[in-house]
Amino acid sequence: MMSILYVAPALGVLALLYTWFRAGWVNRQDAGNQHMQTIAGYIADGAIAFLKAEYRVLSLFALIACAFLGYLGSTGERSSPIIVIAFLIGAVFSALAGFIGMKIATKANVRTAQAARTSLAQALNVSFSGGSVMGMGVAGLAVLGLGSLFIVFYNLFVVKLGAGANGVEMETALEVLTGFSLGAESIALFARVGGGIYTKAADVGADLVGKVEAGIPEDDPRNPATIADNVGDNVGDVAGMGADLFGSYVATILATMVLGREVVAAGDKFNGLSPILLPMVIAGVGIISSLIGILMVRVKEGGNVQGALNFGNYVSVVLTAVSSYFLVRWLLPPGDLIISRPGAVPFTSLDVFYAIIVGLIVGTLMSIITEYYTAMGKRPVLSIVRQSSTGHATTVIGGLAVGMESTVLPILVLAGGIIFSFQFAGLYGVAIAAAGMMATTAMQLAIDAFGPIADNAGGIAEMSELPKEVRERTDILDAVGNTTAATGKGFAIASAALTSLALFAAFMGTANITGIDISNARVLAGLFVGAMIPFIFSALAISAVGRAAMAMVQEVRRQFREIPGIMEGTGRPEYEKCVAISTQAAIREMMLPGAIALIVPIIVGFTMGPEVLGGTLAGVTVSGVLMAMFQSNAGGAWDNAKKSFEKGVMIDGTMQYKGSDAHKASVTGDTVGDPFKDTSGPSMNILIKLMSIVSLVIAPHIAAPEKAMAPVLPNQAEQSVLASSPRDEESASAGKQTFRLTRQLMR
Amino acid sequence: MMSILYVAPALGVLALLYTWFRAGWVNRQDAGNQHMQTIAGYIADGAIAFLKAEYRVLSLFALIACAFLGYLGSTGERSSPIIVIAFLIGAVFSALAGFIGMKIATKANVRTAQAARTSLAQALNVSFSGGSVMGMGVAGLAVLGLGSLFIVFYNLFVVKLGAGANGVEMETALEVLTGFSLGAESIALFARVGGGIYTKAADVGADLVGKVEAGIPEDDPRNPATIADNVGDNVGDVAGMGADLFGSYVATILATMVLGREVVAAGDKFNGLSPILLPMVIAGVGIISSLIGILMVRVKEGGNVQGALNFGNYVSVVLTAVSSYFLVRWLLPPGDLIISRPGAVPFTSLDVFYAIIVGLIVGTLMSIITEYYTAMGKRPVLSIVRQSSTGHATTVIGGLAVGMESTVLPILVLAGGIIFSFQFAGLYGVAIAAAGMMATTAMQLAIDAFGPIADNAGGIAEMSELPKEVRERTDILDAVGNTTAATGKGFAIASAALTSLALFAAFMGTANITGIDISNARVLAGLFVGAMIPFIFSALAISAVGRAAMAMVQEVRRQFREIPGIMEGTGRPEYEKCVAISTQAAIREMMLPGAIALIVPIIVGFTMGPEVLGGTLAGVTVSGVLMAMFQSNAGGAWDNAKKSFEKGVMIDGTMQYKGSDAHKASVTGDTVGDPFKDTSGPSMNILIKLMSIVSLVIAPHIAAPEKAMAPVLPNQAEQSVLASSPRDEESASAGKQTFRLTRQLMR
Repeated sequence: MMSILYVAPALGVLALLYTWFRAGWVNRQDAGNQHMQTIAGYIADGAIAFLKAEYRVLSLFALIACAFLGYLGSTGERSSPIIVIAFLIGAVFSALAGFIGMKIATKANVRTAQAARTSLAQALNVSFSGGSVMGMGVAGLAVLGLGSLFIVFYNLFVVKLGAGANGVEMETALEVLTGFSLGAESIALFARVGGGIYTKAADVGADLVGKVEAGIPEDDPRNPATIADNVGDNVGDVAGMGADLFGSYVATILATMVLGREVVAAGDKFNGLSPILLPMVIAGVGIISSLIGILMVRVKEGGNVQGALNFGNYVSVVLTAVSSYFLVRWLLPPGDLIISRPGAVPFTSLDVFYAIIVGLIVGTLMSIITEYYTAMGKRPVLSIVRQSSTGHATTVIGGLAVGMESTVLPILVLAGGIIFSFQFAGLYGVAIAAAGMMATTAMQLAIDAFGPIADNAGGIAEMSELPKEVRERTDILDAVGNTTAATGKGFAIASAALTSLALFAAFMGTANITGIDISNARVLAGLFVGAMIPFIFSALAISAVGRAAMAMVQEVRRQFREIPGIMEGTGRPEYEKCVAISTQAAIREMMLPGAIALIVPIIVGFTMGPEVLGGTLAGVTVSGVLMAMFQSNAGGAWDNAKKSFEKGVMIDGTMQYKGSDAHKASVTGDTVGDPFKDTSGPSMNILIKLMSIVSLVIAPHIAAPEKAMAPVLPNQAEQSVLASSPRDEESASAGKQTFRLTRQLMR
Repeated sequence: MMSILYVAPALGVLALLYTWFRAGWVNRQDAGNQHMQTIAGYIADGAIAFLKAEYRVLSLFALIACAFLGYLGSTGERSSPIIVIAFLIGAVFSALAGFIGMKIATKANVRTAQAARTSLAQALNVSFSGGSVMGMGVAGLAVLGLGSLFIVFYNLFVVKLGAGANGVEMETALEVLTGFSLGAESIALFARVGGGIYTKAADVGADLVGKVEAGIPEDDPRNPATIADNVGDNVGDVAGMGADLFGSYVATILATMVLGREVVAAGDKFNGLSPILLPMVIAGVGIISSLIGILMVRVKEGGNVQGALNFGNYVSVVLTAVSSYFLVRWLLPPGDLIISRPGAVPFTSLDVFYAIIVGLIVGTLMSIITEYYTAMGKRPVLSIVRQSSTGHATTVIGGLAVGMESTVLPILVLAGGIIFSFQFAGLYGVAIAAAGMMATTAMQLAIDAFGPIADNAGGIAEMSELPKEVRERTDILDAVGNTTAATGKGFAIASAALTSLALFAAFMGTANITGIDISNARVLAGLFVGAMIPFIFSALAISAVGRAAMAMVQEVRRQFREIPGIMEGTGRPEYEKCVAISTQAAIREMMLPGAIALIVPIIVGFTMGPEVLGGTLAGVTVSGVLMAMFQSNAGGAWDNAKKSFEKGVMIDGTMQYKGSDAHKASVTGDTVGDPFKDTSGPSMNILIKLMSIVSLVIAPHIAAPEKAMAPVLPNQAEQSVLASSPRDEESASAGKQTFRLTRQLMR
């Protein structure tokens, strides 16, 4: 029956096969005329140049991290230097995920522009195919990487020693596997922050001089920053997001596996492995569900693009829900499952299924709420539109208020999700809820990545002066892309929050602490410091964008001044100078925030111990989730308030259009929102996950001193899994009582 | 020796005597010519009208609260309906504190303007005297109210029953006394939010039409919103702040008293009362120190006003530090003090003194850091100035980044303060640190309140067209006032944070919980929900300002359009219409945020129990402190970035002045910052304190069910004070071990 181990990697390979063939199909599409191909070439070259520069710096960082991990791995009794290999593979896979996405996006953009000459359906087909290549590529790499490494480490650390699925050997195997997630998430953080700074420096810089000062439209080829702006869409919105979701996906599965080790399942037909394997198999099934959903996305000319995407998405969610019922019943044993942690209560395979459903519901609700707060024509965006009639300041105030308000419902949904999934299956339930939510990552990412591709296609159409109806068709896709970008962010935040909780729980288990008491002054201090991290991280990210955008503005002003004939279209702007400014700024400015995320848990953990670090993680998570929602939603709402003027909006009985004073004020709002929604906001997700993963990696090492005080008996670790101390039992039974009570109340 | 009980009330009376005589002196100063008096009359009438309208609505609220408190008080075994009386007295005293401040401010403003015709020294003397009347009034009312009520309740609940200082009877006495703090803080919240909305609606509205559209200077009598703007300074910055600090002051003392009940002092010469009385006596000593400091504030013509204020402040801080050494040695017994809470360790009177010093240091550092982030000519403000050269959006981005960054150092100071004060004297140490910091409240408030008085004086000078040098002198005072307003906010945030922690600890003791474990899913959900509250609260506050400002803009535009000769100065603007708009908006919009603060702890506490409520409070406190700093400092920095242009600043080698594009962008930043720094930001302080106080009031009632499960033996509560259960002892000794260790490391 151990062939079950190969299910996940096999489905990963299937996803990569789809990626391969679909990418080939996209490549075979018509890439348009020479002019289009030249422009697309500039964009692709700029993107590759950035990724190369970024990866060069990151390989240096990886070397340092490897040295640290190798040292750590060789000292701890529950770890191994092999973690270095897992880390490197994770880092390379994450970089590869970003690369694949960026590569296909720079192929699909020009082909989408060309397809838009024929029909909307054809344009959607090409752009969404591009997105699906990325989605499937990310999911495939993740499942293949995790699945194969697990087979290797399981054989190396567990089977070879003849140990069981719940012992300290398995703990070591999973600890080493955590390196994969650490590698993936570290690269993701730098990619997200770097890409985010790149794209917004170019975007803000291009807009401030081009649109506002020179009065030329967006994507005008006379604007020297326009190529950098389009490159930014690829390196930030595509490669950055790909690495981000790759990291989330891996971290979620891994955290659930770590917690799965503590689930003792009597009568397990997979040698006790089933709770550990479940999240990987669900991810595999999610790949199939996503594949079917992707194939369902079709639209006719004049049809509803958003509807088509939603339909495909719901198909994959429902398929995941249904199939996980059968999966859970088949994989998990029929009897009670028990978490070997004081305070936990037994649960059944059906409870696990309910937890998965909770995760799917939370994910769906988060997307819907995010859409409400950022969509055109709804109350929040309309309130900003109205306030733009009294000037720049009130527009900004309005957007900030919307962003802050938009945290309420998602937090209530999240709190409900935590409580319910915990009541169904304890901390394993919280983790598996996150895994259920993330199962459709491939589909989510396909929907997400199609937006920037369509956006780029519009840019190429504009720059190569294609007929008006082409731009109209790409604009339809782009508008849908703005909404899917917002809902995608809601999904990413929800998944990051649940993932962090799962990691948090895994950290506590690994660090041997049974509680994190915030009435302990040091823990409370940790909570304060942790909650402050997202603020300084955001400050660094958005001020980096501000600085880089100012450099960009000065360069564009210089070119307008010094290059003869540039405004008449006879002089060629020096695009590459602007590309270089964005590239250098992104690489330089991503280092400090990245370092904070990596170093703070190490310092706090080693100097103050695991409980204070737990408080710090709780602070980072809570404040990071709030700041992510606040910034992303404020940014999204400002963006669509500005877009509302393009169609015209009614304010106090008169119609206002592009070019009005109110519209100019709304452009200010949008510009303020740019770094919020595309740099600092989405980085919060990775920040909270990465800090949790770093903590999980160092957990066995900071837990050590406490163990040293009470000498470790041989096999004590294993014993404690099966029989807890009397004091633990007492509190466990108390917990059980409250738990059963609340459960009865719920049914 | 029980005459010690009368020390605090007596010093309160002393402070009120100062208030009385000093107010008389201010009143006897020359109020200037007829024109000045007319304008000052408008302002005073508007302010009184607002306070009347506000207090009318609040008396309705107080009735409802009394009914609820009366019901609660009559059901709980550890409470009493007499809490209603304490609540009402607290509410009335708080209203009175605001009223005194407002009254003296509206007398001192015109007299300061008149004094500025003579000299800067005379103007400072009048305006600072006005501030000192408010500061001493607030401190006097607080100490007198708390001190006398304590005498009454101590006799009623403890002495009459012949009970001791650490028993359940004293718990009831303090629980009833909590009503005083609840009353004070509730009124403070409404006053702060209402006043904040009033002042900023008027300010933003006046600026947007007057300065930006019509191009007339600030405080120009032709602007219909100008009287409302000046009224706003009095009801928001003076009355609101007075009520705020009155609430903080009372809450800090009270929380320390509640924790003091748990301190068992062998050989106490005051029947075990000394740890309970200490915070009140320190407050009394602080009044004397402040009085001496106030008398030290003097300046010559052309002298350094800021330096004079700083000198007075440092005198009072140092005097408080020195005198509390002798106080602590005299009042507390020489032996070990013990907190009757598991995990706590013995400490000495010297440790208590060290904790007070920690509080004084934290307060001083917070003020210095806040000044750095908001002062002209320093790196943060200069960075905003530079970014204003590229437009409105980058100015806003720059300010947001500064605000976020400004949380780092204060949080580290606060975390350090928590850890150190806890290590010296446990949770009592944290509380007494807050009490030490708050001891100089009278001085702080005198410095704070002088700012808006000077600001108003400038307004009156402008409106009544006094000679230019008058305005120059009031401008010097106003500029200093802006800095003191910022540092005052830093002080208020620090005190609110420490106070909340003290209240938090008091809540845990009263609710019978020994820990708040965030790895419990429900507690974690509570943490998320709590952390979200400051976001929705801020959203409501700033969008209220946005809405009210828009109404104001439309009214001013209408008057400019419809009143003939208004711009030529021949038609009289309808000032009273603008006053009415601000008044109505403030009263209407303060209700919902206020209700959230009051109702959330009640709902969470009664449905989810004390531990989840503890998580919620931790969330509110952490996120509230961060949001307070972020918003206040961003607002302060924007304000001074704008002010920098008035003197002229160098950007990229060229001087930029008022009227430049960069200056216009900086006005946008300032306007965005207005509701941040004067409405939502400072409300955070009260929000976190009020939610903690509400929790403390309901604590005995939500703790009840757990008691019911394990039947209460007579005297059990008292027994548990002296002997904890074996399990408690175990964890206590473990805590003690770590504590001793860390203490050794520190010495």
